[in-house]
This record gives sequence, structure tokens and C-alpha cells, in this order.
Amino acid sequence: MSITQVKTLPLLQGLIQPLLDEYSRYFRMFRIEKKHFVCHKGDEANELFFLLSGRLMVVDISLEGRQTGLNFIAPGDYFGELSVLDDLPRPASIVAVSESLIAALPKSKVNSLVNHVPKVAERMLKDMCHRMRMVTDLRCLLGVPNAYSRVFLLISRMAKNQPYVDHFPSHQQVAIMVNTSRETVSRALGLLVTEGVIEKEGMRLIVKNPAALHQMASDFMISGSKV
Amino acid sequence: MSITQVKTLPLLQGLIQPLLDEYSRYFRMFRIEKKHFVCHKGDEANELFFLLSGRLMVVDISLEGRQTGLNFIAPGDYFGELSVLDDLPRPASIVAVSESLIAALPKSKVNSLVNHVPKVAERMLKDMCHRMRMVTDLRCLLGVPNAYSRVFLLISRMAKNQPYVDHFPSHQQVAIMVNTSRETVSRALGLLVTEGVIEKEGMRLIVKNPAALHQMASDFMISGSKV
Repeated sequence: MSITQVKTLPLLQGLIQPLLDEYSRYFRMFRIEKKHFVCHKGDEANELFFLLSGRLMVVDISLEGRQTGLNFIAPGDYFGELSVLDDLPRPASIVAVSESLIAALPKSKVNSLVNHVPKVAERMLKDMCHRMRMVTDLRCLLGVPNAYSRVFLLISRMAKNQPYVDHFPSHQQVAIMVNTSRETVSRALGLLVTEGVIEKEGMRLIVKNPAALHQMASDFMISGSKV
Repeated sequence: MSITQVKTLPLLQGLIQPLLDEYSRYFRMFRIEKKHFVCHKGDEANELFFLLSGRLMVVDISLEGRQTGLNFIAPGDYFGELSVLDDLPRPASIVAVSESLIAALPKSKVNSLVNHVPKVAERMLKDMCHRMRMVTDLRCLLGVPNAYSRVFLLISRMAKNQPYVDHFPSHQQVAIMVNTSRETVSRALGLLVTEGVIEKEGMRLIVKNPAALHQMASDFMISGSKV
């Protein structure tokens, strides 16, 4: 069953059948429990990871031990590609937000894929563009002095392509991403609910009024107060 | 002379001579004056750029018109690859810090290079890894609440591989990068000079005591004061 799942991974689509059969044999599968780490910042890297099921968070742990959430990993995504491609230590730690099933492909096989299958290299380049845009976006967001604005902007970015966010992160996780306290995130979200801008439905956050969300992000920025 | 310069660009190294001759013909050269923009955030992209001489800064301009400096571009670097690879608008603006000479390669030629020359795709992937690490690094830095600490950490990151930073950016540019005021940057640098931690020699900043720099970054972080 797991091998079948590996063959459906987006990165490997377009490979001719014999190659797909060959490469799928090199994968190692493992489960990881909630709150356990897949890898730590600074580790040497030998494998590219693919998330088959569950949910992971990429975190950076600073000198003083504070966590900065960099992004989330959803099923079908691969991760840990930086170290596999540039031979440097893992740039961040990865922790399971829920129990997860992971497939790992050895570095040597990743390199041979990149070198012999232009489609894979091209797809990885496009994916890295996407990640780079996200990281840059979030970096600019961290430059916004008002914490409410940062929360509003984060939601508006997450809901850019559709009017809702599935698997909306916990208040604690949002706090880590936008560099504020959990309490501030709760107050900011509470305000959006009161104003009828958003609605929560289980793990889904629905943006009912995107224009108002945008306006509130600007208003709080201009008011200039540091929340 | 410019065509000769194009042939020495790092991204094109390893191309067989006939390919190098062919591709070098597709480049368009242009000069850009200090403080003028090479491209603007949101522009459609048709070309990959290479900086032949001069110096550029990548900036993001936020909703309220505030600039965030993302990074600098030095001669030999290529830039603007995101939009060329993923067909989305330019994610940031690029401004000349000094008069610059630029070579531009049309998008269609970039795509054919990536698809037919595995070495170019591999090099671009590695370069993107490097850029991703830098952006992530700077993003974590912006999460540090103390502005002096952010200035100290930025210098310590810039001087990671050697004990000096050539072309150290202006105080205004540093202020943009670490999200503070020019005055705060001047005070932070003044403190480092007084303490004998750094020395300025024209455009070069020499880190005389890296351990003290690191210690001061931690001390200001722990003191917790928001400068």
C-alpha cells in the first residue's frame, strides 16, 4: 500500500513506468508520533522526505531557544530538499503536528533523478520558486510592527486562492509564525469573528469578507500602535 | 567586450563552446543609473537578469509604502529567476545602489537551457538553496525583538566565512534590512566601534572580535529591551 502511495507523489509524476518502479523500491517508510521531531536543525542530511499522511511544521529554534514557525507541510509535499541538494546541514527542525507517515529517498537517488530526468529538476525549481515567494512574503510580514496586522495579513495570504483556509493552524502556531503571543492571536481572531469578517468551522477558517480583512490590516498598520 | 563578459558568467560555466557561443548572442545589455529601478514588484517577467558590474538591492515595498531590503546583488550574480521559472509577476523591486551594467536573457532561452543542460538546472537548484537559506536566516533575525541584537546578528551572519564584510551596506540600507531606524543602526555600530569589536576601513567592515559580537547579540536579546 505504501509503495502504491509513493508512486502517486507529485514530484515523481511523468516518470516512465520502469523508472517509477525502480525508484519506488529505494524509499524507506517510517511513522512519527505527534510532537516528535523528524529532523533537527544542524543534522547531516542523507535523505529527501515525502509526507504521505499527517501534518508537520518547520521550525527554527533561535539562540535564546525561541521557536519561529517557518511553514507547514501537508500530505504529498516533499521536504528537506535544501540539505540534500547543497550538502549543508539541515537549516531547520521539523516537528509532527499530528501523527505522520513519511517516505524517505536516499540523497544519491535524488541526485540521479535531478540529473537524468529534466522534468524532476524543472518541478523542483518551480517548487522552490513557490517556497521562496512564501518565505519572502512572510519575511516582509514580520516587518509589520502591529501584531494584529500581522495576523490579519497572514490569514489574507493563506486565503489568497480560495475564500477559506483548511487546517487553520492553532493559535499557538500562528503566534510562532507572526512572532507574537498566543493571547494576541486569540484577541485578533476574536475581533475578526465579532466583526463578521471570518467564521470558524472545525479546522476550516472561512473568510466571509476579504475586503474588510484587508482594510483592517491597513487600519491597524496606520494606527501604528505596537500591540 | 560585453559578450566576452557574458561567457564568463558562473551560471553558464561548463556549457560546450558551440552552445555558449549560441546563447551569448541572445543577451541584451543595458545600463542603469544609481537609484533607478531594474524592475518593479508586480511586473510581468520576460527575462532573466545578470549583473555584470555595479551593485543592486532587492526591496519589497509594503502596503504603507515602507521598504524592506531583502538582499544585495553583486557582479556575476543572476536575478529575477523566480518569475522566469514560475510565470508569476516579479515578487520584489530591484533598485541600483550604484550605476550598473546588466545582461538580460529571454525567458524562452532560459527554459531551453534548464531543460537541455542538466548542469544549469542543477546549478540553479543549488543557488536557490543558498538563497532560501539566506532569506530564512534573515526572516528568523526579524523575529528578534531587540534592534541592536538584529544589527549585531546581521553583521555576524555577513562575516560568517571571513572576518570582514566588503561593501558593507549604508546605515540606511542596514536599517531597511533589519527593520529599524537609521539612527539605531548608527548607534549600534558606534557601540561596536567603541568596544573594539569592529573597525571600518572605507567600504570594508572588519570584525576584530567575533566572539564579543556574538556575546553582545545574546546580551541585548536577554536584556529584552526593545530598542
